[in-house]
Amino acid sequence: MIIIMQPNATKNQVETVIDRIQEIGLDVQINQGKKQVVLGLIGDTRSVQDVAFRSYEGVDTTIRITNTYKLTSREFHPQDTVVDVDGVKIGDGSFVTMAGPCSVEGLEQIRQTARMAQAGGAKILRGGAFKPRTSPYAFQGLEEEGLKYLRQAADEFGLKVITEVMDESHIDLVAHYSDILQIGARNMQNFKLLASVGKTGKPIGLKRGISGTINEWLNAAEYVAVSGKSPVIFIERGIRTFEDATRNTFDLSAVPLIKKMSHFPIIVDPSHGTGVWDLVPPMARAGVATGADGMIVEIHPDPENAWSDGQQSLNEKTYQKMMQEIEIISAAMNQIKALENSSVRG
Amino acid sequence: MIIIMQPNATKNQVETVIDRIQEIGLDVQINQGKKQVVLGLIGDTRSVQDVAFRSYEGVDTTIRITNTYKLTSREFHPQDTVVDVDGVKIGDGSFVTMAGPCSVEGLEQIRQTARMAQAGGAKILRGGAFKPRTSPYAFQGLEEEGLKYLRQAADEFGLKVITEVMDESHIDLVAHYSDILQIGARNMQNFKLLASVGKTGKPIGLKRGISGTINEWLNAAEYVAVSGKSPVIFIERGIRTFEDATRNTFDLSAVPLIKKMSHFPIIVDPSHGTGVWDLVPPMARAGVATGADGMIVEIHPDPENAWSDGQQSLNEKTYQKMMQEIEIISAAMNQIKALENSSVRG
Amino acid sequence: MIIIMQPNATKNQVETVIDRIQEIGLDVQINQGKKQVVLGLIGDTRSVQDVAFRSYEGVDTTIRITNTYKLTSREFHPQDTVVDVDGVKIGDGSFVTMAGPCSVEGLEQIRQTARMAQAGGAKILRGGAFKPRTSPYAFQGLEEEGLKYLRQAADEFGLKVITEVMDESHIDLVAHYSDILQIGARNMQNFKLLASVGKTGKPIGLKRGISGTINEWLNAAEYVAVSGKSPVIFIERGIRTFEDATRNTFDLSAVPLIKKMSHFPIIVDPSHGTGVWDLVPPMARAGVATGADGMIVEIHPDPENAWSDGQQSLNEKTYQKMMQEIEIISAAMNQIKALENSSVRG
Amino acid sequence: MIIIMQPNATKNQVETVIDRIQEIGLDVQINQGKKQVVLGLIGDTRSVQDVAFRSYEGVDTTIRITNTYKLTSREFHPQDTVVDVDGVKIGDGSFVTMAGPCSVEGLEQIRQTARMAQAGGAKILRGGAFKPRTSPYAFQGLEEEGLKYLRQAADEFGLKVITEVMDESHIDLVAHYSDILQIGARNMQNFKLLASVGKTGKPIGLKRGISGTINEWLNAAEYVAVSGKSPVIFIERGIRTFEDATRNTFDLSAVPLIKKMSHFPIIVDPSHGTGVWDLVPPMARAGVATGADGMIVEIHPDPENAWSDGQQSLNEKTYQKMMQEIEIISAAMNQIKALENSSVRG
Repeated sequence: MIIIMQPNATKNQVETVIDRIQEIGLDVQINQGKKQVVLGLIGDTRSVQDVAFRSYEGVDTTIRITNTYKLTSREFHPQDTVVDVDGVKIGDGSFVTMAGPCSVEGLEQIRQTARMAQAGGAKILRGGAFKPRTSPYAFQGLEEEGLKYLRQAADEFGLKVITEVMDESHIDLVAHYSDILQIGARNMQNFKLLASVGKTGKPIGLKRGISGTINEWLNAAEYVAVSGKSPVIFIERGIRTFEDATRNTFDLSAVPLIKKMSHFPIIVDPSHGTGVWDLVPPMARAGVATGADGMIVEIHPDPENAWSDGQQSLNEKTYQKMMQEIEIISAAMNQIKALENSSVRG
Repeated sequence: MIIIMQPNATKNQVETVIDRIQEIGLDVQINQGKKQVVLGLIGDTRSVQDVAFRSYEGVDTTIRITNTYKLTSREFHPQDTVVDVDGVKIGDGSFVTMAGPCSVEGLEQIRQTARMAQAGGAKILRGGAFKPRTSPYAFQGLEEEGLKYLRQAADEFGLKVITEVMDESHIDLVAHYSDILQIGARNMQNFKLLASVGKTGKPIGLKRGISGTINEWLNAAEYVAVSGKSPVIFIERGIRTFEDATRNTFDLSAVPLIKKMSHFPIIVDPSHGTGVWDLVPPMARAGVATGADGMIVEIHPDPENAWSDGQQSLNEKTYQKMMQEIEIISAAMNQIKALENSSVRG
Repeated sequence: MIIIMQPNATKNQVETVIDRIQEIGLDVQINQGKKQVVLGLIGDTRSVQDVAFRSYEGVDTTIRITNTYKLTSREFHPQDTVVDVDGVKIGDGSFVTMAGPCSVEGLEQIRQTARMAQAGGAKILRGGAFKPRTSPYAFQGLEEEGLKYLRQAADEFGLKVITEVMDESHIDLVAHYSDILQIGARNMQNFKLLASVGKTGKPIGLKRGISGTINEWLNAAEYVAVSGKSPVIFIERGIRTFEDATRNTFDLSAVPLIKKMSHFPIIVDPSHGTGVWDLVPPMARAGVATGADGMIVEIHPDPENAWSDGQQSLNEKTYQKMMQEIEIISAAMNQIKALENSSVRG
Repeated sequence: MIIIMQPNATKNQVETVIDRIQEIGLDVQINQGKKQVVLGLIGDTRSVQDVAFRSYEGVDTTIRITNTYKLTSREFHPQDTVVDVDGVKIGDGSFVTMAGPCSVEGLEQIRQTARMAQAGGAKILRGGAFKPRTSPYAFQGLEEEGLKYLRQAADEFGLKVITEVMDESHIDLVAHYSDILQIGARNMQNFKLLASVGKTGKPIGLKRGISGTINEWLNAAEYVAVSGKSPVIFIERGIRTFEDATRNTFDLSAVPLIKKMSHFPIIVDPSHGTGVWDLVPPMARAGVATGADGMIVEIHPDPENAWSDGQQSLNEKTYQKMMQEIEIISAAMNQIKALENSSVRG
């Protein structure tokens, strides 16, 4: 951490700050600039985050130069973490598709969707049984019944399951039926929930909050990581900006950024990222090209009659076409990786 | 709700949509525009929110023209709701101050703060016992011990208590010690928590989410309102934007907007709204002038040694000075209200 | 400026950076942290802004700790600058109102508006003769004819004039008719225009860009300041965020912030700040309470038939009522200032 | 346009609005909803944009359902426009690369860069001679000298030229040396400049403003389109959001969106879109995969000594590697397009 004093700070004010730094067990380096004093703190400054140096008289501002997360960082764990979802690998260089409806609406609907998903090449079935909805009058999900249908449909077609857990009291229930526990965007900073799911050992699909910075997202993953053995799968799903031509602004730069800063895999969600079904295929292709480890996408056998998110769901035809395209771009990405490996070898 | 068809929609596509509208029990008015057909839905369209008309072929877009919230709306309840916090009235035309530290750090600290708060004219003591923190390594609050200290200090100085409840499992505990249950910004859309606190009957201080729209905020209040008898107090605390000279962008326009759309009172939080202690007094004055029903503000006997949020906390001297200013602006606002009443009478 | 090296930077990489720093004539202080080297640059680093230290191998990031603006800064000029608009003082502690229509529509309309404006207590008449419009098919202003009407109406009612100059080629023309030259939000970073208006010597009303940071705004003022003798009047008019319940998000925290960082006065524009006429009076009151030096507000004798911005314009009745309120809040602010002065004396 | 009356609007208020609609020559359809009246306007409502229906008593809100742009719309011109830059085709299904330094720094620098650019497969050379800079103390460009060097270097290596024109007074000068006139992000809504460049007949590279919506961007293109014969090339370069881990948030969804709404080609700028050189290659690949018609990218023979934007510039090695990757993804995209054509044929 660096502390920048005001140009007119008194000698006394500077010394008060220095005393406090030493009091909490850190070393300090004092730089007399042309206009102001700048103090450098040396030692493990993670402990300093609660000291309000900015409230000291004479202090202009403070700048953090080391991250507050550790287990999540690439520095701590240089190799990519490959998440094993009961045999399906995420983060091993392949591109894994998770597909399914926004909500589980009934056994037949989810069975049909599972069939579609599997036929297109998806390995994991998605579907909501507990639905967070802006209005209390909107459909809130089939709850445990939905979980049962989801599991049954996935098993029938040889798929794994990902579904959202919204509340601590449902963790055991959801973990009983699901292979990956998804934390929704609204819960990215529900820290108690993060800590609890981290103890299950199941992989955690951690959606980025609608206004979550990359730094906050990495810290949220740290809550999972310090709590147990659950690996994290980051899910980029768009952020809220001024632009309203799309439901969210799909921030694909997050993929190479997260890969640089963390060892955990990252997948993309072009359905929520755009909110419009015909933008999903081009943005899914773009996701592959950024180097993402997979995607999660909304599909429905009959989007016009979907109980939720129909406008961003693909039907059988558009989904199959997209999956063909994904395969072609994935093959191109493999060619690029081969190039890199051969040049490294050379 | 209005459904706008694409300019090149076929007759068949229009009819499919009309059939579906009638199937869900609504009437429809058909407007043949110069370029496209526009359909108006008549009836209680709250039930329509889950129908994905935008996924129908030939549909361009849909526009909702009635709100999805009801109990929260001004239309449903034209008179202002006055919230009675065990004798302290919020929303009756007075300006109520809630003051206290970010975190309860110990009995002495909170007692000193309570004394300061009361001396300045605050009626309600704030203080966090459960703290949501970006990093798992930061101080997370004294929990029940903190609640006890908070209650004891408030009682000693004749103050009421507001504190945050972060989790469903703590509702009874927090409700035992606190007069108002605060829902933090990160939980504005934690719908299960909202529904549960709504059943306690205690007033709910509902902070606006960091990226919460006015419309989502009103719908979040509706989750409380439909769940029981708890009245809501809206708390504007700033939103996340591109500007980083302040911690958040303090959206004071929310005050007259919420007053127009809802009957529940609204207070402002200039501490989180700005994040910088010397911006707090001018923005608190501005809050009074917008017509807010009160404010919640961070104060600390020794901000330099505060365990959290020291940079945005006022000390005794700056707090007392601000409270004098608040009194002057409040008197001016009363003069303005008297003017209105006399002109109405005349 | 501070340069933070990566934890794994080589000795060689550090030395390359140090050599470059010395090459451009600056001193450097080297801090060996626990994890990484941090370099502090000493000297006038304004010249360093074009050196791409972040592109050097081994560099993690760079942090600027001195501002790039100088003449605009409070540090350079500690006393408030009072702008004298042909006898009307802005920044002397009074609250000055500028009022008028969005567009000059004709002589009668602007005469009526000038009468209204003056009767309510405004000192300066606003009105657009050159209008920047999102669509090329919208009304673009009466141009020189509009300027003539504006001047004539202002003179008749003893008012000064503020109007927008959109283009370098119109500077002389607009300066001939107007007392203050307004730079619109879209032109906040039209640097050539800023430099040119700065040479006129007329006060420049500098609107904040729709996505302009406080720092960029101060630098834009610097373009005016280095170009000649024109003083700047900052105009806060709202920024673009995700919230769409208002036309812009009115960032009133800018008032105390700009007053802290610059000596130039700042006024507020609650009409564009909210975009809705009935939010204008409460937000104008709030503007006074933040300590702003004045406001600019849209009024129209007949908003329903206004050629532009009718929805955010006040009519005679609502304007007069607001001005009464403004007077009451202004009196309260004078009371607060008197308090400060007496306590300083004491 | 649709006008939604308030639930409590009087019959008289509704009639006043209807009268006004008819007065301006439009037909109106009246829909009596369950709660409120909704009026549909029929006719060419482009002319209505200046009527302030929202200022009428009893009006709740108004909704525009037809676009204000016409010549730019896909509806008006269903086929893709292919822009011919003196033999280099943009928008014909190929992926065209424009590469070069942020600023032209001298003849040798731009010659070296042109050689690099051409060797990697770029067809067009970029480089700034007039530079808009946040601070007046930063390097502002070599001006005409820079233009000469740029043209000379491009000609030597068989490249076309794109460079920015910042000001109306420079249009002839820039048009003399450049094949494409670039309008920078800060000038997206400099309407007079747009209208003037539109008259040159040269292709216009129109960057999206830092806070420009898709709709405003399309309207800005309309200013060019109505002014003459210049075709537009849209350039997505990132928008300003709360995220500061990247310089801007690169909104790649703009590519399929613009292609849906307009016939003009769109290219992407991953350098400004990310601001960090090592994010450029993955985001450039993603741009190809969205279906963009090309990209504009910053390269420099020696980024460490670049006069501006060094941190986001690729050097020879990283650029050549990226171009190999681009070729592989482009080939994959051609395979996808072939698939579509064959399925159409089938």
